[in-house]
This record gives sequence, structure tokens and C-alpha cells, in this order.
Amino acid sequence: MKRTTEKNLMVFSGRAHPVLSEEVAHLLGTGLVPQSAYEFANSEIYVRYEESVRGCDAFVIQSHTAPINEWIMEHLIMVDALKRASAKRITVVMPFYGYARQDKKHRGREPISARLIADLFKTAGADRLITVDLHADQIQGFFDGPVDHLMALPILAEYVREKYGDQPLAVVSPDAGRIKVAERWSARLGGAPLAFIHKTRNIDRPNEVSANRVVGQVDGRICVLVDDMIDTAGTIVAAAEALMADGAAGVVIAATHALLSEPAVDRLKNSAATEIVVTNTLPLSDDRHFDKLTCLSIAPLLARAIREVFEDGSVTSMFDGHA
Amino acid sequence: MKRTTEKNLMVFSGRAHPVLSEEVAHLLGTGLVPQSAYEFANSEIYVRYEESVRGCDAFVIQSHTAPINEWIMEHLIMVDALKRASAKRITVVMPFYGYARQDKKHRGREPISARLIADLFKTAGADRLITVDLHADQIQGFFDGPVDHLMALPILAEYVREKYGDQPLAVVSPDAGRIKVAERWSARLGGAPLAFIHKTRNIDRPNEVSANRVVGQVDGRICVLVDDMIDTAGTIVAAAEALMADGAAGVVIAATHALLSEPAVDRLKNSAATEIVVTNTLPLSDDRHFDKLTCLSIAPLLARAIREVFEDGSVTSMFDGHA
Amino acid sequence: MKRTTEKNLMVFSGRAHPVLSEEVAHLLGTGLVPQSAYEFANSEIYVRYEESVRGCDAFVIQSHTAPINEWIMEHLIMVDALKRASAKRITVVMPFYGYARQDKKHRGREPISARLIADLFKTAGADRLITVDLHADQIQGFFDGPVDHLMALPILAEYVREKYGDQPLAVVSPDAGRIKVAERWSARLGGAPLAFIHKTRNIDRPNEVSANRVVGQVDGRICVLVDDMIDTAGTIVAAAEALMADGAAGVVIAATHALLSEPAVDRLKNSAATEIVVTNTLPLSDDRHFDKLTCLSIAPLLARAIREVFEDGSVTSMFDGHA
Amino acid sequence: MKRTTEKNLMVFSGRAHPVLSEEVAHLLGTGLVPQSAYEFANSEIYVRYEESVRGCDAFVIQSHTAPINEWIMEHLIMVDALKRASAKRITVVMPFYGYARQDKKHRGREPISARLIADLFKTAGADRLITVDLHADQIQGFFDGPVDHLMALPILAEYVREKYGDQPLAVVSPDAGRIKVAERWSARLGGAPLAFIHKTRNIDRPNEVSANRVVGQVDGRICVLVDDMIDTAGTIVAAAEALMADGAAGVVIAATHALLSEPAVDRLKNSAATEIVVTNTLPLSDDRHFDKLTCLSIAPLLARAIREVFEDGSVTSMFDGHA
Amino acid sequence: MKRTTEKNLMVFSGRAHPVLSEEVAHLLGTGLVPQSAYEFANSEIYVRYEESVRGCDAFVIQSHTAPINEWIMEHLIMVDALKRASAKRITVVMPFYGYARQDKKHRGREPISARLIADLFKTAGADRLITVDLHADQIQGFFDGPVDHLMALPILAEYVREKYGDQPLAVVSPDAGRIKVAERWSARLGGAPLAFIHKTRNIDRPNEVSANRVVGQVDGRICVLVDDMIDTAGTIVAAAEALMADGAAGVVIAATHALLSEPAVDRLKNSAATEIVVTNTLPLSDDRHFDKLTCLSIAPLLARAIREVFEDGSVTSMFDGHA
Amino acid sequence: MKRTTEKNLMVFSGRAHPVLSEEVAHLLGTGLVPQSAYEFANSEIYVRYEESVRGCDAFVIQSHTAPINEWIMEHLIMVDALKRASAKRITVVMPFYGYARQDKKHRGREPISARLIADLFKTAGADRLITVDLHADQIQGFFDGPVDHLMALPILAEYVREKYGDQPLAVVSPDAGRIKVAERWSARLGGAPLAFIHKTRNIDRPNEVSANRVVGQVDGRICVLVDDMIDTAGTIVAAAEALMADGAAGVVIAATHALLSEPAVDRLKNSAATEIVVTNTLPLSDDRHFDKLTCLSIAPLLARAIREVFEDGSVTSMFDGHA
Repeated sequence: MKRTTEKNLMVFSGRAHPVLSEEVAHLLGTGLVPQSAYEFANSEIYVRYEESVRGCDAFVIQSHTAPINEWIMEHLIMVDALKRASAKRITVVMPFYGYARQDKKHRGREPISARLIADLFKTAGADRLITVDLHADQIQGFFDGPVDHLMALPILAEYVREKYGDQPLAVVSPDAGRIKVAERWSARLGGAPLAFIHKTRNIDRPNEVSANRVVGQVDGRICVLVDDMIDTAGTIVAAAEALMADGAAGVVIAATHALLSEPAVDRLKNSAATEIVVTNTLPLSDDRHFDKLTCLSIAPLLARAIREVFEDGSVTSMFDGHA
Repeated sequence: MKRTTEKNLMVFSGRAHPVLSEEVAHLLGTGLVPQSAYEFANSEIYVRYEESVRGCDAFVIQSHTAPINEWIMEHLIMVDALKRASAKRITVVMPFYGYARQDKKHRGREPISARLIADLFKTAGADRLITVDLHADQIQGFFDGPVDHLMALPILAEYVREKYGDQPLAVVSPDAGRIKVAERWSARLGGAPLAFIHKTRNIDRPNEVSANRVVGQVDGRICVLVDDMIDTAGTIVAAAEALMADGAAGVVIAATHALLSEPAVDRLKNSAATEIVVTNTLPLSDDRHFDKLTCLSIAPLLARAIREVFEDGSVTSMFDGHA
Repeated sequence: MKRTTEKNLMVFSGRAHPVLSEEVAHLLGTGLVPQSAYEFANSEIYVRYEESVRGCDAFVIQSHTAPINEWIMEHLIMVDALKRASAKRITVVMPFYGYARQDKKHRGREPISARLIADLFKTAGADRLITVDLHADQIQGFFDGPVDHLMALPILAEYVREKYGDQPLAVVSPDAGRIKVAERWSARLGGAPLAFIHKTRNIDRPNEVSANRVVGQVDGRICVLVDDMIDTAGTIVAAAEALMADGAAGVVIAATHALLSEPAVDRLKNSAATEIVVTNTLPLSDDRHFDKLTCLSIAPLLARAIREVFEDGSVTSMFDGHA
Repeated sequence: MKRTTEKNLMVFSGRAHPVLSEEVAHLLGTGLVPQSAYEFANSEIYVRYEESVRGCDAFVIQSHTAPINEWIMEHLIMVDALKRASAKRITVVMPFYGYARQDKKHRGREPISARLIADLFKTAGADRLITVDLHADQIQGFFDGPVDHLMALPILAEYVREKYGDQPLAVVSPDAGRIKVAERWSARLGGAPLAFIHKTRNIDRPNEVSANRVVGQVDGRICVLVDDMIDTAGTIVAAAEALMADGAAGVVIAATHALLSEPAVDRLKNSAATEIVVTNTLPLSDDRHFDKLTCLSIAPLLARAIREVFEDGSVTSMFDGHA
Repeated sequence: MKRTTEKNLMVFSGRAHPVLSEEVAHLLGTGLVPQSAYEFANSEIYVRYEESVRGCDAFVIQSHTAPINEWIMEHLIMVDALKRASAKRITVVMPFYGYARQDKKHRGREPISARLIADLFKTAGADRLITVDLHADQIQGFFDGPVDHLMALPILAEYVREKYGDQPLAVVSPDAGRIKVAERWSARLGGAPLAFIHKTRNIDRPNEVSANRVVGQVDGRICVLVDDMIDTAGTIVAAAEALMADGAAGVVIAATHALLSEPAVDRLKNSAATEIVVTNTLPLSDDRHFDKLTCLSIAPLLARAIREVFEDGSVTSMFDGHA
Repeated sequence: MKRTTEKNLMVFSGRAHPVLSEEVAHLLGTGLVPQSAYEFANSEIYVRYEESVRGCDAFVIQSHTAPINEWIMEHLIMVDALKRASAKRITVVMPFYGYARQDKKHRGREPISARLIADLFKTAGADRLITVDLHADQIQGFFDGPVDHLMALPILAEYVREKYGDQPLAVVSPDAGRIKVAERWSARLGGAPLAFIHKTRNIDRPNEVSANRVVGQVDGRICVLVDDMIDTAGTIVAAAEALMADGAAGVVIAATHALLSEPAVDRLKNSAATEIVVTNTLPLSDDRHFDKLTCLSIAPLLARAIREVFEDGSVTSMFDGHA
């Protein structure tokens, strides 16, 4: 009894950021698999798929936004349900990888939660991961399996180049540890000079910065301040101020992940930056939209990566050999 | 270079229900290990222990109450931190086992979240589990390692016997599937007759009951209505009403786990039951306390089990051979 | 060097119940893969396949009948041989899941053999399970992978409905824990009323029942006494007697798994039941056939499930969303 | 809360060969842990320990004799029960390792059952193995953990040396693959000359030998025919005949494992051998005892190994560096 | 979104023996996948593939020759890179299995390196193994997955039969443990008589032989001395001398694996053997070629096995049911 | 049968850097466990311990120096031998963690060798790791178990402070990614100002630097150039030159790991640096010693960490809460 084997792509979405998932599915020429998902009275999550998923090539999208533990658990439960319903291959798509910042023991007796997250998804049944702009590249190595690590850089840099490319630019990293990213930006922006902000962090409270010093020449230039994520925006806003104090002609902030936790929106609104460019890896509630904020869609990138994975194409080729 | 080996018991507590953990530690003649635990702005949880835990025999207590995903994730992260800090053995103490009700596929394409929970804790580093009154005994088999399954029955039944033992009693199960528990109650209460409520559930919404029928003789008796947990209390309150309608002299509700999700408190307050007896496996916020509610402490049971585990004694002996 | 991928279904059978396997294979339009299987002089089992199985989608059928340990070990050895011979996917088909009753620790220091069985098959190389009417639904969660849990209910109930549907019926559960199954029967039989037998078991000897009481109205009705399995038939025969004593017009026993261990046949022959309807998930030696026994074939159900699994169809759809 | 750690040795025995286990326990100055063990009506095995085993250093003895699958499954279930009852360390003692002869694929599409057995015990919860005279030394490598591989050679050779050492001896291997064992015998017997029987086996039926040829000088010597096990005795009896035909003065057969499957006893009784010396790694029913058979106890060896393991001594030192 | 599944065979080669890999790829009608592979200054190995390997059926060939640890580590790293680059299935092809001789504990406190090697490759991501003429067949059981065990015997024996078949032959095993191989040779060579060399090894230094004795009749015959590998050639050359001393008409040495470690070449050149026939499972540097050495290619065998594996054919059929 | 448990510390050493291991053992008041370790003719490594290791707390030290694959494999084999010889706990001590630089995919289709190394040691049997100054802190998360991550900073900085502390200093990082380390140095050296070298690397050849620019004020100061390792010294020597060109008063190089691969020694000898301070985590052959090189011993740090681990003390406390 013989049959030719067929592959069947199915896209699933958690409830954290359905608009993004729908856009991805639409770009792939399909729809999201219908499902029931809700909480019981005691806040336990229930999920069930309304269609057969047997033998499918499943891509399960969830944005790890606040309340992050709720959405991670929903993501895990969705994977478990797919495993037990005989999905052939399960690719977990996390546009933002939750707990990525706890990627090492900063001090003794801490967890390494980013590794824990990788192991939890493996245990639930994930075969593969797709994610965007990890806080540290090493997190790829936390998962025991293939990880497709996508970069929002081309999307963000293209936008900046088109809008600001005719002015003198500098690329600035708000953190000494992220200069390699700034270098890639510089290359994309025609070799714009680099600068960095030297800040001291208190390891007990990683969000608090104690001092900022501009290293490099920013005088008279539009500074493109680049980072992987904006959480409370304290660091980046202070950096913008330091740049203006050092004579910058203006500041544009660009980051992949717009966490925008309280009080990020107020800080950014009132900051020296003239524009903040982010992507929609995380959902932005209406009350967090504001005039200076530009949000580019990551959906085309995710859709293309999913298509390459499904069709055994090359994700690496999407980034000129990187990733 | 030789040394005699020593064991060192340390008790850790998540933030869901610290009062219970403190009581347990106190009964063990020790204190909780001091720790830092808080959320980052984007709701990620951070945990760090303030003392060396190297080589200790760790017992990590967390009540899986709402917001349950938050507390489960904190529990997992605490285990991860202990594993990486070289604790010798890690026993996860979950007075209420979260997601226990999703212990099977009621319909196709559902998860088996109770198994997932067991696997997540194993992955994080748990060597053993201690838990109280599982929704189904089979959940013991979900964990790949020793599970000490404690019963609150002796505590609850002793209270009921002392207070109501001089009146004619009946033991009533609100669910046909829990009659074996009712039988144990009956034995503890001197052979009180049994009755059951026959209810039909809609498998899409396990909290909704469509009909109740009393099976057995309850006429003129104080009915002790027993269950493992009270969530929204819809089922149990309807059962109490059915019992009163059938001529019961009164209804006392006894359950181990007081989830008391909305609108349980209002339902119970206004119910036919004269007293509701529960334990503190889950925290009860002040606004959920009310006159008819009696809350007995589970801490002595947990403390004794921890001591037996630490001293290689017998937990089974605590329950006359059961567990 | 490219090739289109093909799937190749192959059906394998242990020696416990070859007639059933042959019927399944026949319904699938194929035959059993020829093999050598015998014992060495010291009772070790030897298995070898006579045809190449490389790359096949293997379904390995074995009924866990007495001597059950022998057949389980043969089943495990068959899976090991398939794994080492490069079968692509191995689905273990156990029409009756051995050791299903030891699904929890009834008392301290017992094994959970049903979990052990799941782990042994996983270790040997099983990717998936297909089984029929588990003793407890939770056993699905013991296996770390997809489990297709089939129900014999439609087959059995259709037979009963056709033969007895014109008479007043009652559906009776011999055990308070199995009322949900009885409810499904009731729905299939046009809403026939329910009744239960309340029995007390001694946990040391689960086969011995100490008392029986009919709960519900059975007077003047043909009672369909339903259970998952009939082992020594002590429980069910006593239940039948209790029903007749309560005024039942007749008793028909229906169960999926006919273990019929000594002295089941004599008990059933001499019982108050007029017909015993079972399926052939387990083999029935000629000396265990008797006039009142009707054995329906489970083969069409297994064959359809195997076909759905092979063709990535839906097993859930076979049961209106359940399973 | 600190305690000095204590180790507690406990010896458990399956039902296959209780006399041996009792002798081992007695030599260790302890008794077997009392337990319930029996079959249910459908031949499923049930085991429960009557005493607390929490924290103990468990040694679980079972002889893998016929019905071998029954005893192996009981052995696995015993390990599972110990794991779930919180034994600290579980050492599986298998005086004879079942399925050891299926240690490779002799032909395509065979299992490697000896590896499967190792994995099954690991899965059930075994931390370590103790076994005697494996069919192939490589089987040690099948288990993922420590294996103490004991040799009966000193016991057997000492007996033969004392009884026959004043006569001219030859050491004969019945199989070309076991000459290294014969060499060790030769060294123990003062450098007695070696000989081998060259036999051809049919790989379909490993018990059938098609031809025997004596290689080496045996004329006028008492031939000590050595092997690891005697199953049906066909090979060894034919070897004895070949030796006598070649002019041997007599034949003494020595083997560790006395499987003595039908028709071994008749063959040996009627054979040319004057004495058959074995150990009691496997039980010998009364009807398999006969005049020429001498059975030496392996219990002192097992007891000493268990003591060394318990006390962190050296098992290797028991065998002059080997093992 | 559906697609027909395609398989894509890709052949990868480590740097130990590229000529062999190229020949294999050529026979398969393809080329080796281009890659970067080199050492960093501190001798760490770096590997990267130059083409997308996503979804491919990968065969990774490496000969475990000296410096063997370097080539094994490169092999492992290549597998890791394939796993992380989403190869669909990874088959490790090791024409010579490194560390195969350490397949058991010869003495206490030794490693079992052959098992370790199997586990390392499993950990790195290997799904399957293909290897040639293992030192012990049991090593198949060390790998947790399918092993295709190929035999060079047909290639070697055919060569010998054609060249020497018209003269009186004897097949000689240099080691009592390898007589079964000699028997297969004998069958291939028309039933040529067998002989063996009885040698004593010192277990501390497995390469040193202390004595040689010819067992069997070799007088006047061309002796085909067969072994699985030739390392320093001490054993085999001494065997050849013993054969000549016993009156052999000539000696031809045949072995699968030509390790030819120092001083093998000198020993063989100066030996009594007239021809040494080997295969190219291991590379032979130019300075190790000499007149009497004939090297047959193993590439057709490997290519055919890879093709059968890729096309789900039968490898067993390549060897008349063996393997 | 009860015994008080004892712990027995044993220190084992591979052959890569025995002097360091001996110093560590001496500081612990013990000696190295005697062992046999050598290569077979084909370069396979053999290891055996000369003393019983049963039940010991094993610390296995090996420096991952060139030929690094040889020493890593020896390290793995040593762990395997300990596991199989029943060591109770195995702590792998790798003063320099091999392959740490391949901690992420710099480009597509690369391995993540640093994760692979962690998994290989886990597979071999490692329970814990101790290592010094990882290339990236995230590598701690690659190992599934406790990692004690030691820092050489206190040793190196104390030396520099004593010798150069009375002159104006600057702390310089040769790489933008290592500024956090420089900050810790700065704190240790009384708040010395920071500077960095901005270099562009070609990702194909990570050792080649294309440009160097000093960022920060170094004029007139003794620059302490700090890094985790010195491999070929190209980067660091160019950095030293850039510093001198920018007006530095002098350059002192400090690094933990002295790989000193060709042509590091010549480069350093001829460099602008006046002193190079390293530790002996890796062995330095005599021909790589030179006048300007100061090598401090890491042995006291390792010995203290081992002692803390053995005695269940705190390693974190050795570093003021870090690690």
C-alpha cells in the first residue's frame, strides 16, 4: 500500500498578537487554523484545534509580550496539543524570544531562564525555532535543534536610509556590547561613522543606568541610535539626551522589539528623539501608539522564512549568508 | 580526602502563597531561604537566592493559584536556579497541582496539560514531587520520578466528625467519578450512608452542569458534600440545592482546594450550605473570606511529609498504607 | 539526486492473536509482513522479518492477552527489530493495553505499571500508539507521543440497539467510576435511563467485590450492563444478579475487552445475563466460546484508524470529535 | 536543619529463584525485604513492598529463567516500584542476563534484544547492574551506567582443580569463539593444554550444530569442557562425544549458567561426561537434578560484590584486576 | 498549502580521506557538497557548508584514521552543523569505526570507548550509521538507532579467488576469536580447509603477542590469512611466519582495514607473505604503498549502500541476508 | 545494614597539562590518582585508573590546549571510565573551555561547537563543570547542569595593581564586546579610565583584523590591555601599537588564557607591550617562555573552588557574589 507523500503547511496563532499571525498567514496565501482558546475561571488556559492537524507541517506563532508567562504557557500548551494530535513537524515561531535577557548567571544562584525556555519548548514537542534578533546570538545554542535566526536590520535600515539618507548620519550603539550590530547598520547606511554610549549598569537592576558618556564623533550628525529592544526606554532616552548634549543634529531611534513597558511611551514622547522606528514583533496597544512612533511590519520576513523552511529553501540566503 | 556526608534541609517559597510556606518552615524549625524575586517591566520574572544552596536538600513550595501561569513559571525558574546552583536534590512541593483537570484528551486535538506540567518540572530539574489530593490519581504517573501524594482527608474529616458527628450524616459526592473518595469519608465518619449527585457536563465547558439528580437517601440527614476542589462553585452549590430539595437536614461542604474563582464566593454565601470547610493549599485573599467558610491549615501535613522525605522515613505510614 | 518521497504501509503481527491482525491487513488490502517468530529452548523470543522494511510506515499489532508478559516482550522485540531495520515510523497497535489497571499507586510502594509499559514501548522505538478503550483515559498521557484512542462503543451499541432497541432499556454501570461511559451508551440508545451498581472493593485484591447495591430504576427493563473489560466476571455477574433481584426484565452485558480469565466462562454461562456482547480485541480460545457470547470484530475500526493515520486523515472524525 | 547521611542496604528478590536471593541476603547479614507479589487472573504481575524503602540502597535480584519474559517483566516492575517509592539507588542484580545471546544482528531485520533489555532496565529506573559471566563481554557496553561483571571461573576452577588436579587435564572450548575463557581456565589449572571443538552452526537455528571436529591434543587426558551456559546441551554433549572419540580419558563439563532446557537433562545423563559442574545462577527444579550434576553456589560471589558496591570497595580487586 | 515531498541526497566529506568520498559521490552520480574546513591557530576545527542543506538526506563520510581524535571531532562537528542547518536525516558513514577495539572493559576501570563513540555521534545529531566490518558485531548494539553493517568479504574474496583459486588453499584466522569470519571465507573459496593461529595476548598491551601455534593442516597450501584490520602488523606477520614454518606453500594476507601504523609497512615488506590485500576504508599515504600491497576500493560498496538507504531498498539483500 | 556515608575527593588529570593538576592536588593536600594513559599505534587513546574510584567525588582536570581534539577526547574517555567505574559524582574541570569561540552561528550552516562540547561531556557522564573565564558568559547555559564559572580577574588585577598601581593607568579593551570585563578591571584598579579599540573583523577569518582605532583617552597613561585569551596575538599586538601611537606611556597586556599559537610569541616579543601577564590555564612549553611574559598560577583558584564544591561551600562567595 503506497502513497506519494505530501506536505501540508498549517499556521497556528496564540492569542497574544493575532494581527501579526493573520498577516503572516495571509502572505503565505492561507489562513490561521481555527481553534478554541480561553481561560478557565482559575486562569488555566485551554486550547483545542477545530480542524485535523495530522501529518501537517505546523508553524505556531506567539509573541512573548506581557503578561509574558501567560503567553509562553499558551505557546507550550499549543505545541503539546499539536504533538499529541500527530503534527509531523512543529516549528515554534517566537518573533520575540521571552526571557532572552536572562541568558547567563550575572551573579551566583540565578537561573538561566533563556536556556530554560529553550528546554521547555523542546520538552513540549518543538522540533525547530524561528525567532528574530535575539538579545545574544549565543541563545541559538540553547535550543537542541535548528534555529532560524532572522534579522530585522534590512527592513529597519532601508526605512532609515530612504528617509534620512541624504543627511550626515552617525550610527550609535546605546550599549558597548552591541557595537557589532551598529557596524552592520553602518555598512547598510553607506559607512556612516560609529559612536557608542558608555553606560554603567547596576547588576541588581538591569534597567537602571547610572552614567552615560558619548564615545565617538556625533557633532552635527543625525544619530541613528540602534538597539535590539526598547523596554522602559530609560537607557535609550538617556542616550538620546547625551547625544544631543554632545552636539548631535538629531536622533532617530531604531529597534526591533517594541516592549514599551511603562513608562516607555511617556519617556519617548518627551525625548530628544524625533522618530522611533520599530517592528511589530510585539503587539502595540492603541494607547501606546504616538506620533513619533513608526512601526514596520515583520510579517513579510516571517512569511518568507516560513516559506523557505516549508519548501526546503535557504533562510541564510535571505541575509547574504548571515543567520 | 574524606568527609562524612551531611544533609541540609532548605525550604524555598514562591510568591504565590508565602504565608503557607512560612508556616511549613516554622513547623520544621527553620525559616524560608531569603531570595530576591520580582518582575521586570515586561513581566518577566527574576529570582535569586541570597544564601548558598550548594549541596542542600531543597523543597520548593509554590501554590498554583491565579494568575496560575505566572506562578508556575516562577516555580520552574526557581527550580532552574537551584539546579544551576548545585542543590543536591530538588523536591517540588505543589499543594495544588495546576492544570490537573486537563489530565486527558476529552476530545481530539486537545493538549494533556497535566502531563505537560509534569514534564516541564522534570526538565527544569525537579527530582521529586509532593502534592495534595490530585484531581485524578493517575497524574502521579505523569511524573517520571517519585511522587508523594498527600491526602487532606484526615484533617477535613476529623474537623467534620468533631463538629457534626453527633447528628445523622450522609456523605455525598457531587460527581459520580469521585465516589471512592466519598467512601473513604464514610469510613472516617463511622459508616455514614453514601449518596451521589448525577450531573451531566458539557465537554466544551467543563464548568457548566446541565442537570442534577440525587442518587441515594439523604432525607433528614446532614449531608457532607465532598470534592477535591471548589472552583466557581456552580456544581457544588447546585448539588447542595438538590440535596435540600430532597429533604436533607443540612449541607456541609468539604473540599481540599479552595480555588473560589469568581463568582464562587457569592454563590457559596447565598447557598444552602451552612458551612464550607477547605484547606489553605491555595491562598485566600481577604475579600474571599466569609462567615460560613472554615479554612484548615495544610501546613502540618506538608511539614510532616517534608520531614519524612528528608529523614528517609515513610510518607505512606502517614496514611495507613495509602499514598 | 532527487526523488519524490513515497510512503509504504506495512502491517506486522505478533503471535498472540494473528486472526485479528490478518483481518485488519485484509481490510487494508494488504497482507501481514512474513516473519520468523519462535521461542528458544529457554523461552527467549526470537523475531525476524522476511522482507525489507526500510523506510516503511509500520503498524505493529499485538493483543496483550495471557501469557501477557510473553506477548508484551514479543511486542517490544518486534519494535526494536523495526527500529534497527530502518522503519520510518513505528505505530504500536495494542487493541488491549496491558497493565492498564495498574494506572496509579493504590497504596504506597506500588509500581505504576501502565506508565512503565508506555515508557518501555517508547524506549524500544515506538513513535505512536493506537489502542482501544483504555481503562482510564489518563493513560493517554503516560505515552510521550501521539495516542489514538479508539472507542468500541459505536460497534457495540449499534448491535444492542438493533437487537434490543424495541424493548424498554436501561444502561447500567457496574462501577461508579464508569458512569460517563454509560452516559454515552444512553445517548446512543435514545436516552435510556441510567443506573449504577455501588460496590466496595478491597484494594488488596481488586477483583473481589464485597457488596452490590443497585442505584437507579431498573424495574421491568432490559439492563445493558456496560464495562471496559470482563476479567474473571465476578463483578459483572454479581451486578447482573443484583439487577435481576431489583426487578430487571433481563440483562445484556456489553464490554470491549473479553479477558475471560478463569472462571469467567462458567460464571457467565450460569449468570442471569441472557447475552454477553464483546469484541475480539483479545483472542478467545475455542473452549471459551459459549452460546450466550457474541463477539463482534474490532478489525474494521482498527483498519479505518490505521488508514486515517497512514493517509494523514482524522481519527477524531471517526468519533464525532471525541478521541 | 542538618543530618548526617546514612546508607541503608536493602535486598529485594523476584520470585524466580528465591533460594538464591535468601542465601545472598543471609550472607550479608540481613533478610529479604518482605513483599506481595502475585499474578492477576489475566497473568499481569502485581508487586508491592511491605516496608518503607525510602532512601535505601536497593539491590534487586532476579534470575532470568523460564518463563523468562515473566521474570524479566517482574524485575522491571520491581524497579519501577522502587523508583516511585524513593529508593536512593537501584542496582539490578541479574545472575544470568536474559537474551544475552541476541547481542547482535546475525542477519538483517533482527532485533538486538540484549541491548533492548539494558535499555528497558534503564528506563524502569536501574542505576547500575551486577551480572555474572555475560555471553559476550561487549554487553557491558549496552547499559548506560556502571556494570559489575562478575566471573564464576574462580569458583568453578577451584572445584575442578581440587577434584581432578592430580590427573592429566586438557581444557576444551566447545566453540571457537570462547577460547579466551579456556585460556583463563588453563592458567588456573596449571597450564593445562588447550583444545577446541570446531562446529558449524546454522544461523537460523543457533541450537543446531552440524559438525564437530576436535582441534588440539586430548588423547589420554581428562577434558574439562568449559562454556558460559548449557541450554539444551546438544552442543556440549556432542563435543563430549567427539572428545571421547578422539581418545580423551574422560570429560568433565563446567559452565556457569545451567539453563538445562529440555532435553538437556536426558542428554547429559546419557552423555560421555562423568561430571557436570555448574552454579546456581538459575534455579534447578528437583526433577532436573541428577547424579552427575554438581551445583556450586554463586551466592558468596554475589554477596561479596554487593558488599563492595555498598561500601564503595573494589569489585575489580575480587578478580585480580579483571572485571 | 500543499506540496509533494521530495528527497534530496547530499554527500559530505571530512578531510581525512577525501579521495574515497569523491569516488563514492561520483558513483552516486553527484559531487561532494562544497565546504570550508580548516583549523584555527590553536587547532580547533572550523566547518561550514557552502550550499543550503535544508531538508536534505545527508550522508557524512569520514575515515577514522590517525590523527584519529582530530578526524572524529571533525566528524562530530560536521554532524552538529548539519543538524543546526535543518538537514532532514543525517547518516554517519564511518568506513572504519574508530575505537572499535575498546568495546568492553578488559580490566576494571577502563572506558568502553566504542560505546562512547556511538553516544557522541547520537548526541551530535546522527540518525543512522553505516560502517564496514566492525571489530565485534556487538558494536551495532552500541548505537541507539539503525546501523547498516557492510562486509568487505565479497570484494576481498572475489579478488583472492580469481587470483589464487586454482591452487590448493587454506583459510587461516590469526586469532581464535575470528574463526567465524574465516568460515565465511572458506565458503566463498569453495570450502577451503580452515586453520587458526593460537596466540596469547597480554591484556595490558593488546598489540603484543607472546606465542603462536598453528592449529589445523596448512602443509603445502597457499594460506589466506584473514583479519578485520592490520594495525602494526606484528600479529599477522608472526602468523605468516608460523604458517611458513609449518610448511605452507605461501601466504596471502587479506584484511578490510589497513591502519598500517608504524612499523607495519616494514614488517609486511619483509614478511613471508607474498601479497597483502586490503581495502581503502582508510587512506594510505604514498609512503605506505609498497609492491606486495593490493588495495581494492570500498567505494562501490558504500555507494550501493547509500543508494539503498536513500531509496528505501534493502542493504541486507546486498549480503544474502546477512548484515 | 546501615553505614554512615562518607565522601571521598579524588583528583584526576589528563596528560595535557599535568603540572597544573599536580599543583591543584597538592594544594588540596592530596595527589593525583595514578593511571595508565597512552596512545595505541593508530593514535587511539587508552586510559585506565590504577586505584578503585568507586563512590568517589571525582574532579577531572584537563587543559584544552593543542592538539585540542586529542585532549578533549582524552577528557571524554576519562569521564566515561569514571562513570563505568561507579564514581559517585563527576566534575569536569576545564581551566580553558575548548571551542568556546564557536558559541554561535556567525553565518548560516556553521556548527555551534561550544554547545556540542557541553553536550559531549554530558553524554560521557559529566555531572558538573568548573571552568575559568568563558569567552562568552552565555556558554554556562550550554551545559545542562551546574557550572562553576571562575574568574582570574582578582589574581591578574592584584598583580597589576601592585606593580603599576602608582602610575597613571587606563584600562583598554581590544574588542568592543569585552568592555564589561574592562569595567571590572577599572573598579579593581581604583577607577582607572576606560578605552577601547574599535576593530573590524572579517567573519570568514576571525583572527584577521582589518583596522584599529583607539576610542577614549590614553595619552600619557600606562594602558592595561585586557582580554580573555591570547591566541596568535595579532589583535592584541596591533592594539598595543595603536595605543602607543595614540600617546600611551606604556602597554601591559593581561589575559587569562595564554594559547600563544604561532606566531604569538614572536609578535609579543617584538611588540610595544612591556609586559604580558597571563595565567597557566594552558601549558606553556619552554620555547614559548620569554622575558616579558609573566605567568601567574591559576591552581590556587581551582583548588579553592574544588574544595568549596566538595564541602558544599559557596563558590559565589569567592567572587563577591558574582559567578
